[in-house]
Amino acid sequence: MTSLIKRGQDIAKNARNQRNRIAREAVISALEAAIESANPYKLVMEHIHLKDSNLIIDGEEISLNKYRNILVVGGGKAVGAMAEALEDVLGDKIKEGLVNILTGTAGRYRTRKIKLNEAGHPIPDLSGMVGTKRMFEMVENARKEDLIICLISGGGSAMMTLPARGVSIEDKQKLTKLLLLSGANINEINIVRKHLSMFKGGQLAKAAFPATTVSLILSDVVGDPIDSIASGPTAPDPTTYRDAIEILRKYDLWDKTPDTIKNVLDKGSAGLLPETPKPDNPIFENVRNIIVGNNLMACKAAKAVLKNLGFKTLILTTRMQGESREVGIFLGSIAKEISSSGNPQQPPAAIVVGGETTVTVRGRGLGGRNQELVLSAAKCIADRNGVCIGSIGTDGIDGPTDAAGALVDGETLRRANELGLDYGRALMENDSYNFFRVLDDLLITGPTGSNVNDVAILCVCA
Amino acid sequence: MTSLIKRGQDIAKNARNQRNRIAREAVISALEAAIESANPYKLVMEHIHLKDSNLIIDGEEISLNKYRNILVVGGGKAVGAMAEALEDVLGDKIKEGLVNILTGTAGRYRTRKIKLNEAGHPIPDLSGMVGTKRMFEMVENARKEDLIICLISGGGSAMMTLPARGVSIEDKQKLTKLLLLSGANINEINIVRKHLSMFKGGQLAKAAFPATTVSLILSDVVGDPIDSIASGPTAPDPTTYRDAIEILRKYDLWDKTPDTIKNVLDKGSAGLLPETPKPDNPIFENVRNIIVGNNLMACKAAKAVLKNLGFKTLILTTRMQGESREVGIFLGSIAKEISSSGNPQQPPAAIVVGGETTVTVRGRGLGGRNQELVLSAAKCIADRNGVCIGSIGTDGIDGPTDAAGALVDGETLRRANELGLDYGRALMENDSYNFFRVLDDLLITGPTGSNVNDVAILCVCA
Repeated sequence: MTSLIKRGQDIAKNARNQRNRIAREAVISALEAAIESANPYKLVMEHIHLKDSNLIIDGEEISLNKYRNILVVGGGKAVGAMAEALEDVLGDKIKEGLVNILTGTAGRYRTRKIKLNEAGHPIPDLSGMVGTKRMFEMVENARKEDLIICLISGGGSAMMTLPARGVSIEDKQKLTKLLLLSGANINEINIVRKHLSMFKGGQLAKAAFPATTVSLILSDVVGDPIDSIASGPTAPDPTTYRDAIEILRKYDLWDKTPDTIKNVLDKGSAGLLPETPKPDNPIFENVRNIIVGNNLMACKAAKAVLKNLGFKTLILTTRMQGESREVGIFLGSIAKEISSSGNPQQPPAAIVVGGETTVTVRGRGLGGRNQELVLSAAKCIADRNGVCIGSIGTDGIDGPTDAAGALVDGETLRRANELGLDYGRALMENDSYNFFRVLDDLLITGPTGSNVNDVAILCVCA
Repeated sequence: MTSLIKRGQDIAKNARNQRNRIAREAVISALEAAIESANPYKLVMEHIHLKDSNLIIDGEEISLNKYRNILVVGGGKAVGAMAEALEDVLGDKIKEGLVNILTGTAGRYRTRKIKLNEAGHPIPDLSGMVGTKRMFEMVENARKEDLIICLISGGGSAMMTLPARGVSIEDKQKLTKLLLLSGANINEINIVRKHLSMFKGGQLAKAAFPATTVSLILSDVVGDPIDSIASGPTAPDPTTYRDAIEILRKYDLWDKTPDTIKNVLDKGSAGLLPETPKPDNPIFENVRNIIVGNNLMACKAAKAVLKNLGFKTLILTTRMQGESREVGIFLGSIAKEISSSGNPQQPPAAIVVGGETTVTVRGRGLGGRNQELVLSAAKCIADRNGVCIGSIGTDGIDGPTDAAGALVDGETLRRANELGLDYGRALMENDSYNFFRVLDDLLITGPTGSNVNDVAILCVCA
């Protein structure tokens, strides 16, 4: 699934001394474990199995005899592998299925019953919309005796797009681009998306009623709020049209918003359009949402590797948020403290942090939130020996780059200087990618087919 | 020294339930211990004592018979109490002394030999300059047989001002104001100050040479770099005129800088003025710089209290830096993780963080970095029970307010809402002070007479 291991061995060689090499190797091994633990095929296999004609999900039995048809829908970056696993368990018991997977990846997965439809990400495209429309019709036609299994993972928001009446896909594309550049966090972006969609914010569950819906969810949203992951097609939505308008105003986007979209939000907030189904809606009695994988599991896998390597290890949080470069400074300050005073733990010590930070784009460079986080941390740990900080997106895709992330050690600034790189400019211009490309310190895995957010590791050797 | 205890008991009452009350009381007790541990009188007493006619400093003996005169100079927020302690140890062995202390505090300290001169802070004033000029003359006239004891603490940069030739105090005041509002960190501000001063950046030690200089330093700079604390009057200065110019350009202040100051910096960077003494300068063989108190000691004192109260406690870093509201989000994310997954430790767990964050002022409200940090954290911990986050400046002065800091718990947003407070506006307008004033959640100690940076505590009850 990942080529991080091979790259990792090269990158460890960039260490200028033995302690930095040990720190680099530890960070890379831990990040590899995090990615491996998020393998969506394995996660689905671990959560469901068949026993006679009962489907066991998380220890709970669902009698398949009760149901006439099993239908499969869903979408997200990891859904190809999740669909494969589901078919390997249920086989011909599945009547029909269609899921939206990442453009260019259909060749990777073998399914017979579940059709794999390619969809664009992060900007929604026509093919994704056509697939979503087909899913919507499938569940709308489902009856009380039908079981709908919905596979959901990160990326599902963009990949399961079905614009509200009157809104074109082009308008949604335009607004999505504006939101992605605004500094709005993913929760905020999703609140807007839900109110411009016929599918998101519990509306899939509403369309499926009175059928039974079981969602298997690979979480890519900090803290696993099921209403946010892929904009929660089967989850109650506490947010409103008014919230969506406020977010667009907060990021000064209202005046740039296409009129068709303003129309929908204005009408909705005036009560002229139905709201998304709220938590007290009885349709949710027919719905089960199950998290099969998340950031905490990935952080725990990384921690286990680090412990094995002899590092005293803490998972600090799986909910890191905020500006990438600021989180980098904070992690850098912890690394310095470990090496100076032995707090929070004496070296060899490691810290694991998960979540997803945000880059407020100010410059015109190329980079991603993980690369920018470690770029910012590099200055804090400059000249410290035996310290390494690495960060990756578990989907293998950090920003619009071919890297999953990058790593830095105490020699990074010196090496950059020798290579004629301008550190201040790279940070100012959000140009972390080109900085690490020249240093050969990018972590490149290729798309992993999964996504449980980002994982950052810092290691301080004894 | 502090009235935090009494206020603390009132504030704990703002808790809406027993777990929040326990969390609030723990945070307040830990913050009190941090402040108490930074008591400058006690810290000087712990570091020096007389044995026969030898002065013992940190276990090392200095034979006073070697010296003709003992002279005392210095400045900073804590120097009043430090001078008192020094006199209580050395008494009439001191020949003469003058130190700059905070305006309005001379009545608090009893000294006979060491004259207490009041000086403005954070904007330097004329009285401070007159005192600094007197100290400069005193050390310049010192001979090889003289011992100069220099008392230094936070605030000393502004309080020991002696502008370079050609620069008026008004110009320095103007530039200091611009820098304080720019988002520049304290290290950056001090690099500029050193190159506009006859006193800072090792120049006091240079003037004192060939006398012996011993500096007792209460550190208020993250990581205790002695060249940064009070702009390092007795420390080698690795920075240059060119660095000072770059910092003014970085924060877009060059065009607003008074011409007299531009002149000095331009001449200096062209090699026409002497640089501050660099680390290899032989004058530093006659100098000893001793840290008597710092942020780590305060964090350890807080940790000890929390452990005693049954909290598993970690000191995460004493070097926190960066934008206050971003650090608040990070601490909030750790609080959530503790209460959700038991990482990094199972509740009851506490985290101690020290350092000093920065507010980039965008709004027109009233607040300080500690108040803004916890204001930002409040949203992260909203509705969590048994969680409290508090943060204070150990000098008792957070920004231009009468508060040392503030605290928040999971009920803060709800209470604010009920009181008609606009959380988003308070954050946007940097108006944390008025927000917490209405909630009655300000932590008010009055000036503590000390300064070892800020301490933030988060507690999560079981």
